[in-house]
Amino acid sequence: MRRSAITIAAALLASAPIAAQTVPPAAPVDRIIDQGTNHSEVMRIAQYLTDVIGARLTNSPGIRKAEDWTQAKFREWGLANVHKEGFEFGRGWWNERLSVRMVTPRPLQLVAAPLAWTPGTDGPVRGEVVLAPMKDAAAFDALKGKLRGKIALITDPKPIQDPVDPAFKRWSDEELVKRNYYDLPNAEDEDNAGYAARIAFAARRDAFLKQEGALGYATMSSRNNKLVHGQNSQFQLGKSGTVPAIELAAEDYRRLARLAKMGAKPVLEIDSVSHFDDSDSKAYNILADIPGTDAKAGYVMAGAHLDSWAMGDGAADNGAGTAMVMEAARILKASGIRTRRTIRFALWAGEEQGLLGSMAYVENHVARRPVDPGATGIVRYLTWSDAFPITPGPDHAKLAAYFNLDNGSGRIRGIYAQGNTAVMPIFEQWFAPFRAMGATSVSARRTDSTDHVFFDAVGIPAFQFIQDPLDYGALVHHTNVDTFDHLKADDLRQGAIILAAFLVNAANSDQPLPRAPLATAPTAADRFYPFTGSEAAH
Amino acid sequence: MRRSAITIAAALLASAPIAAQTVPPAAPVDRIIDQGTNHSEVMRIAQYLTDVIGARLTNSPGIRKAEDWTQAKFREWGLANVHKEGFEFGRGWWNERLSVRMVTPRPLQLVAAPLAWTPGTDGPVRGEVVLAPMKDAAAFDALKGKLRGKIALITDPKPIQDPVDPAFKRWSDEELVKRNYYDLPNAEDEDNAGYAARIAFAARRDAFLKQEGALGYATMSSRNNKLVHGQNSQFQLGKSGTVPAIELAAEDYRRLARLAKMGAKPVLEIDSVSHFDDSDSKAYNILADIPGTDAKAGYVMAGAHLDSWAMGDGAADNGAGTAMVMEAARILKASGIRTRRTIRFALWAGEEQGLLGSMAYVENHVARRPVDPGATGIVRYLTWSDAFPITPGPDHAKLAAYFNLDNGSGRIRGIYAQGNTAVMPIFEQWFAPFRAMGATSVSARRTDSTDHVFFDAVGIPAFQFIQDPLDYGALVHHTNVDTFDHLKADDLRQGAIILAAFLVNAANSDQPLPRAPLATAPTAADRFYPFTGSEAAH
Repeated sequence: MRRSAITIAAALLASAPIAAQTVPPAAPVDRIIDQGTNHSEVMRIAQYLTDVIGARLTNSPGIRKAEDWTQAKFREWGLANVHKEGFEFGRGWWNERLSVRMVTPRPLQLVAAPLAWTPGTDGPVRGEVVLAPMKDAAAFDALKGKLRGKIALITDPKPIQDPVDPAFKRWSDEELVKRNYYDLPNAEDEDNAGYAARIAFAARRDAFLKQEGALGYATMSSRNNKLVHGQNSQFQLGKSGTVPAIELAAEDYRRLARLAKMGAKPVLEIDSVSHFDDSDSKAYNILADIPGTDAKAGYVMAGAHLDSWAMGDGAADNGAGTAMVMEAARILKASGIRTRRTIRFALWAGEEQGLLGSMAYVENHVARRPVDPGATGIVRYLTWSDAFPITPGPDHAKLAAYFNLDNGSGRIRGIYAQGNTAVMPIFEQWFAPFRAMGATSVSARRTDSTDHVFFDAVGIPAFQFIQDPLDYGALVHHTNVDTFDHLKADDLRQGAIILAAFLVNAANSDQPLPRAPLATAPTAADRFYPFTGSEAAH
Repeated sequence: MRRSAITIAAALLASAPIAAQTVPPAAPVDRIIDQGTNHSEVMRIAQYLTDVIGARLTNSPGIRKAEDWTQAKFREWGLANVHKEGFEFGRGWWNERLSVRMVTPRPLQLVAAPLAWTPGTDGPVRGEVVLAPMKDAAAFDALKGKLRGKIALITDPKPIQDPVDPAFKRWSDEELVKRNYYDLPNAEDEDNAGYAARIAFAARRDAFLKQEGALGYATMSSRNNKLVHGQNSQFQLGKSGTVPAIELAAEDYRRLARLAKMGAKPVLEIDSVSHFDDSDSKAYNILADIPGTDAKAGYVMAGAHLDSWAMGDGAADNGAGTAMVMEAARILKASGIRTRRTIRFALWAGEEQGLLGSMAYVENHVARRPVDPGATGIVRYLTWSDAFPITPGPDHAKLAAYFNLDNGSGRIRGIYAQGNTAVMPIFEQWFAPFRAMGATSVSARRTDSTDHVFFDAVGIPAFQFIQDPLDYGALVHHTNVDTFDHLKADDLRQGAIILAAFLVNAANSDQPLPRAPLATAPTAADRFYPFTGSEAAH
C-alpha cells in the first residue's frame, strides 16, 4: 500500500512538468516480463489442463476437451487463424475404472494401471498368476498350454535400485557447463532395429497370449514406490491389444513373482472397464497465429505437445510446455508487441506415440520424406529420418525457426543448439536479459525425443530448451503423480517469458536464423566397419 | 567346486598327523558369525512373515497366523518354554477390498488406504467431496448441516516438500559421531498434552461426522508420490470408528481439494469392505527361551514387535527386527552355545498402538506403575511413564538386560546407551569384533518410541540399536511399500549376528549390566519456570 502510493506520487511529480513530452515506451523484453509476472496466467492455464481436463491421451475424451478449450482460449486472447489440423491417428481409448487385488494367499489391494489401448475385463475376473517372462518368441514353446485362464507376468521382476540420489534437483552451474558437450553424430551408432524388433514382438506376444486363452497379462512398473505408467509404446494406427493388460506397481509385481516362484499360487482379481472410441480416427494439432507486419517475411513457431499418457494428469509432460506456449501467446497479444514475421503457436497431438502431430505438420507444410506408407505410429517415427531424399514443401523457406518446450516444469537454464553452431552466438545475445533468471547455457548438443526433431531433420532451425530437471526424471515423467501440485509457478512464468522473448527476437531479426546443412542419404563411403581382432574373436 | 576340494585336501593333510590332538573349539563369536552367514535363514524368515503372511495389524488374521508360525519355528529350532502371553487389546480389523475413484468431473482411479479400525461402505457409495478441515471443535459450527451424504476432506492439503535429499542413505562416520550427542532430560519439555488432546478430538470429530450424516471422510497422506499408510493412531480398547474413513494419496487429495475449491463439485465413489473381529479381544506376545546353565543367574532378553500397520507387508517395520531376533535364537541354538543366564526372545503385539505388548510384559513380570485403569491403548502409552511410584515385580532383579530391534532393515552401526553411561565402555568392548562390519558407535543418547521404553522406564538396562536408515524414513515406514524387496539381506545377517553376540555377552558376564538410577516422581522442587521478561510480554 505504502509502496504503491509513493510510486504513484513520484510518477505524478515526475510527469507534471513535462506533460507534453513523450514518455519512451518500455522495451519489448520488459513489457514481456511485466505481463508474464504481474499478470501471469500460466498456472491457471496449467490448472485447467491438468486438474479439470486431466489426462489427454491422443484421441481420448480428455484431449477432445483440450482441443476445444485451447482453441477457445486462443480466440479469447485475440489470436488469428485459430484452427485444428487433423491427421490419421487411430483408435481412441480410455479407462473408466480399474481394481486389481490379490485374493490368494491373502487379500491385498494392489496399485496398477491399465496398459493404454488394451481391453478391459468385462466384469471382475480371477486367475492364477503364472511367471511367463517373454523376451522373444523362443519363450512361447515352454509356455504353450500353460496360460489358459491365467494371468501372465511377462516381464522380469528386476530388483530395486536404491534411490541414493535426490529425486528433485536443479542444475548447478558446473552441471550446466557439462551439458555443453556435443557428441559428434556417428552413423555407426544409429540403429533403431532393436526397438523395431521389440515392437514387432509385442504384437506376436499379444497374439500368442490370445491364442493360449490367457485371462490377461501384467508388466512391472519401471519405477518403484507405487508409481505406475500404463504407457504402451507399441502404438500403430488401427491396431490395439486384444488381451486385458495391466502394469503393476513394482513392489506388487515382485511380491506376486516371489509367491508364484515359491509355489503359493497367487490369484488376482482384475476388474477393469476400458473403452475404445472409433468415432473419429483423426487426431488434431491446434494452431494459432499472431500475424506479422510483413506478409512476405515468413513465420516462426513455438510448439508443445498437448497430449499425454493416460495416468496422472499430464502436468509436467506436457501441461507445463503447453501452458508456457499458450502463456507466451497471451503475453505477446496482451503486451501489443508486433513483429515482422508471423508467430505461430502449435499444440501437437500424438507426440507420445512417435511425434506424430509435429510429423504430420512437417509433412503437410514443410518437407516430405519417402517413408513407407504402411509404417504408422511408432514404426513411422523410427524410420522417418532415415528416408531420403528430402523434398521441400511450401513452408520450407518460410519457416524461420521452431522452439519447443517439453522437459517438464523446470525453469529454462539454456537451449540446445542442435549441432547448429552458427546460432550459438545469437542465442547468447538473446539470453542476455535473462541470465539473472538462471538462463545462461547455450549448448551445441543435439537433443531428441520431442517435437523439434522432424523440423530439425528437414533442415529447419528447430530447438528445445534446457530446463531444470526438478522431479521429472525420478518421479513424474509418464507416471500417476504427473499432477498439478508437482508444477512450479515461478519456473513456468520464467519459461513463458523467455519463450516469448525468443519468438520476438526470431520474428524481428533482419536475417532469419542460420541453417545447418540439409541431411543427405548416407552412402557406403560414409561408413567404416570398426572391427578389431578381439571383437571378431567373440 | 575347485575351492572345496582344496579345502578338504588341506584339512586332511593338516589333520592326519595330529589325529589324536584336540582341535581347539572356535570362539563363540566366530561360531555365531559362521552360523549367521554361511547358514543364514534370516531372509527366509522375513520372507514368510512378509510375502506369505503379510500385514500383521494387532488382532487381525495376519497376526494370528504369525503367532502360530513364529511359535512353531521356535519349537522347530528346539527353544524351551515357547508360549504366548495374552493381554486385553480390543477389536480385530481387516480390509478385504478398497476401490476409491473420482467419478466427477472425470473418471479417475485414486490410490487410497482404509483407516484402520474404521468401517467399510457396505457396497459402492458416491458422495460429493466437501472441504472440511477440522483442527478442533471450533470447526464444527461452520460445517453443521453441510455434510449429509458428503465425503469430508478433514485435513489441510499441505503443499509438496521437494525431495532434495536422497531417499536411501547410510550413516557416514561423521554422522554416526553426531548421533552420540545426548540431550539432557528436561522435565519442562515433557508434555504429552497436545497428543492426548488430538486423540480426544478425533473421537469427537468421528461423533460429529456420524451425527451430521457424512458418508465418509478422507485424510491426506503425509508422504507424496502415492505412498499411503492407513495408520490410525487413536486406538483405544473397545473403541473404533463409526464412519467409513480413507487416507488418500497426497496428489489425489490435493487434486480433490483444488477441484472442490474451484467449484467443480468433485464426486467420489468408495467401495470398501472391512471386517471387525470380536472373537478374541486379547493380543498375544510370543516368548521362547534358551535356558541358562545357572537357574539362579536370571535372564537377558531380545525383543522386536511382530505386529505392523495394515498397509504394506510389515517388512522394515518390523519384519526385519522380528527376523533378526528369531535368527539370533536359531543361530544360538544351532551353534550350541550355552550361557549362564537364560536368554529369552520376545515378539511383541500392539507396539503400533502404544508399545502395549511390551508394556503388558513389564506390568506382569517386571514392575507396575499406578496408571489410570481406564486409560487404554495410546492414552495408556502417553501416561504410563508419568505414574509413580514404581513397584518392582518378580523379574525386576532377574532381568539383566533387554535389547530391542525396530529401526528397519539397515545394518547395526551402534547402540543407544539410553543415558546409562556406565554401560558404554562395556558395549565398546562387545562391538570390538564387529567394527569391521560397520558397528562402531556407542551413543549416550536416549531413543524412544519402541519396546525398550517401558523396560527402561522401570530401571532395566534396556537398549535399542543404531541402524543405517536406508529408505526407512523417506519411503517405507508404515507405508504400502513396506515390502520384502526393500529389505537388505547382508544387513539383516549382520544385525542377527551382532544381536546374538550381545546376548551371549550379557548372559555370560560375571556381573549383570550396571543400572541407571530408578526414576522417582518429580516434585515441585525439580522444576523451575523459565519465564523471562520478553516471554511474559507475549
